[in-house]
Amino acid sequence: MAEASRTSEARRDAVFGRWVVFSPARSRRPTDLKSHNPTTNPSHAAPGADAPKPSCPFCAGRESECAPQIFRVPPDDSLPWRIRVIENLYPALRRDVEPPPALSGDGDGEGEGEGEHAPGECAVRGFGFHDVVIETPRHDVRLWDLDAQGVRDVLLAYAERVRQLAEHPALKYVQVFKNHGASAGASMAHSHSQMLGTPFVPPSVTTRLNYMKEVFDKSGKCSLCEIRSKDILISETPNFSAIVPFAASYPFEIWIIPRQHVSYFHDIDQDKALELGSLLKTMLQKLSKQLNDPPFNFMIHSAPFGLSSSCLPYAHWFLQILPQLSVIGGFELGSGCYINPVFPEDAAKILRELDCS
Amino acid sequence: MAEASRTSEARRDAVFGRWVVFSPARSRRPTDLKSHNPTTNPSHAAPGADAPKPSCPFCAGRESECAPQIFRVPPDDSLPWRIRVIENLYPALRRDVEPPPALSGDGDGEGEGEGEHAPGECAVRGFGFHDVVIETPRHDVRLWDLDAQGVRDVLLAYAERVRQLAEHPALKYVQVFKNHGASAGASMAHSHSQMLGTPFVPPSVTTRLNYMKEVFDKSGKCSLCEIRSKDILISETPNFSAIVPFAASYPFEIWIIPRQHVSYFHDIDQDKALELGSLLKTMLQKLSKQLNDPPFNFMIHSAPFGLSSSCLPYAHWFLQILPQLSVIGGFELGSGCYINPVFPEDAAKILRELDCS
Ligand SMILES: Nc1ncnc2c1ncn2[C@@H]1O[C@H](COP(=O)(O)OP(=O)(O)O[C@H]2O[C@H](CO)[C@@H](O)[C@H](O)[C@H]2O)[C@@H](O)[C@H]1O
Ligand SMILES: Nc1ncnc2c1ncn2[C@@H]1O[C@H](COP(=O)(O)OP(=O)(O)O[C@H]2O[C@H](CO)[C@@H](O)[C@H](O)[C@H]2O)[C@@H](O)[C@H]1O
Repeated sequence: MAEASRTSEARRDAVFGRWVVFSPARSRRPTDLKSHNPTTNPSHAAPGADAPKPSCPFCAGRESECAPQIFRVPPDDSLPWRIRVIENLYPALRRDVEPPPALSGDGDGEGEGEGEHAPGECAVRGFGFHDVVIETPRHDVRLWDLDAQGVRDVLLAYAERVRQLAEHPALKYVQVFKNHGASAGASMAHSHSQMLGTPFVPPSVTTRLNYMKEVFDKSGKCSLCEIRSKDILISETPNFSAIVPFAASYPFEIWIIPRQHVSYFHDIDQDKALELGSLLKTMLQKLSKQLNDPPFNFMIHSAPFGLSSSCLPYAHWFLQILPQLSVIGGFELGSGCYINPVFPEDAAKILRELDCS
Repeated sequence: MAEASRTSEARRDAVFGRWVVFSPARSRRPTDLKSHNPTTNPSHAAPGADAPKPSCPFCAGRESECAPQIFRVPPDDSLPWRIRVIENLYPALRRDVEPPPALSGDGDGEGEGEGEHAPGECAVRGFGFHDVVIETPRHDVRLWDLDAQGVRDVLLAYAERVRQLAEHPALKYVQVFKNHGASAGASMAHSHSQMLGTPFVPPSVTTRLNYMKEVFDKSGKCSLCEIRSKDILISETPNFSAIVPFAASYPFEIWIIPRQHVSYFHDIDQDKALELGSLLKTMLQKLSKQLNDPPFNFMIHSAPFGLSSSCLPYAHWFLQILPQLSVIGGFELGSGCYINPVFPEDAAKILRELDCS
């Protein structure tokens, strides 16, 4: 039993229908963030001294301590790198195990006979891709310290890697995300993001598309194309809006939404990526200034691969930023309903009026 | 705008279909837990010295500093109280605002015209009931320090209060929950739990019942009646099983499930409450011993009020305990899929074999 448990595995329960990844290897990963306090990490002081941190494998010069590189920016090895996309050394899902037999649709297959399961339960081998994007060679630079071109290049690196993974027949979705600060879950302080390609459509993606379909079926409209309120707007560019969403779950939550209807993030082009990079930089600067460098997560919400054309009209990608200012409790964990002490209109007004130039 | 924002409000977004409660008043609530570290709170040392904490309004003798009492155990005022059910002084939802006009089914009404909303969005006044259960008059006693009868009485107090709230025509659900330790969100160290009655069915309840319905429609079976695996069993009594669920989202997550099919927690009788109290006490002792008094949450998952009789065959209540051992990150927040480093079978074996007598 214990022996068989060593390989990672993904399971879906029969009550919430939620997928969970079991990965004992994850507990061995190192951390250079000692405290779980939401305070600024001292190694994240203003950029300046170009000293790599002695023990950080993400710093320039320590590439050999990392898992294999997938690609770098710029590609030319004779130039110093600015961004590296590498394998995660402690992957939650592994690229080297055999992919599960095609899970129908949203992963509705009934497992692969790895033991007796109750109805509605499901278990599959822990196949998938777990990559890390090192956003800068420097330990003391945060994502929003890069110039707009630098942030653009990080976004383009995400998009390129997602396009590569979209080619894999067994992958259904890639979750792109960033953890900043120990209270947002980060174990490494050096600025980075991650992506995890899964052989099933994750639960929140299913919920989101189901709900957007319901709205579309009733109104003929895409939920995200319809966001028009000036009250919740922070900033707008020709192609993107940054808002505090109408029913923000977290205080000062921000969504950056393409103003045109686009289903897949990874279809982004150079120009739009520059515009998005500039807007993302501004939003992170505003949060940092208003909330004193808070821990935060951001996630890109895109569409599952190979979505049928009838679903495209209500699938609209966006980027969600969640500052982590407090700990959620049993009410949220039990009910899925959040309690937010800050009204979106108030947060939007504060962020809109904040000057970061 | 800012002025109108002072009253609390519940909103549903048009993307995830999730309800969120906006409650500016919540941010004023006090805290006697200074750190957010998952360490044992010193005021929670072994019971012994009967000294109330000078500033704690939940201690015996400070009743006047609390919001109004709803009932006490024992009811006889000439005896000292053992349990008090009181109003929350900083309620997320308020009992004194007018209830929203009946929200159809799962709260599918389209709001009440409090401004222009995009399709799928919804906003209602912040009506509801938010109560606190003080589990003991003593500051230094934890729930599992009470004897089985003491824990039974806390469970019976939950059930009695839920039965009272079930009479209110505008309430759809009551979430009973407990936060223990600052990393589990607790702001007060004195042993207590809470319940929040909502005028809508919360998102996780809808998801859970939908998925259990799907399983029932396919298999003719209730997901929770079908749990039979010995591998994940921790302990069993005539009427309850304590297990680590097959797809546990958190390491050492525990579910206590009635072995007979029962939809509503609040139908529990004295004898079953004693059995459950004893099992809950043992599980909390095991977690405390194995994980060194970890922060945790527990939640009772019951059925919405007035569920139609066709839904009862797949609605089965249970109690979920979540130890909070690490911080979740962007992958979980974005995808709704959890990464758990500990296999349920391994956690169950450890907890099963741990001796707490
Ligand atoms: N030398 C090396 N080469 C390559 N990769 C290396 C490496 N050294 C470390 N890594 C990897 O780098 C990643 C750093 O990631 P983060 O700091 O964003 O958070 P982490 O994934 O640890 O956990 C947070 O995010 C996940 C996902 O949301 C949550 O499950 C978890 O609870 C939360 O703490 C880790 O995944 C680690 O495995
Ligand atoms: N004198 C008094 N009389 C009556 N009531 C009093 C009181 N003094 C304080 N209270 C109330 O007592 C409660 C204590 O509750 P907890 O410690 O379990 O966590 P809290 O609700 O603060 O927040 C945690 O739980 C909620 C719900 O899950 C999350 O929203 C939040 O982020 C998390 O920190 C508070 O709700 C407070 O309002």
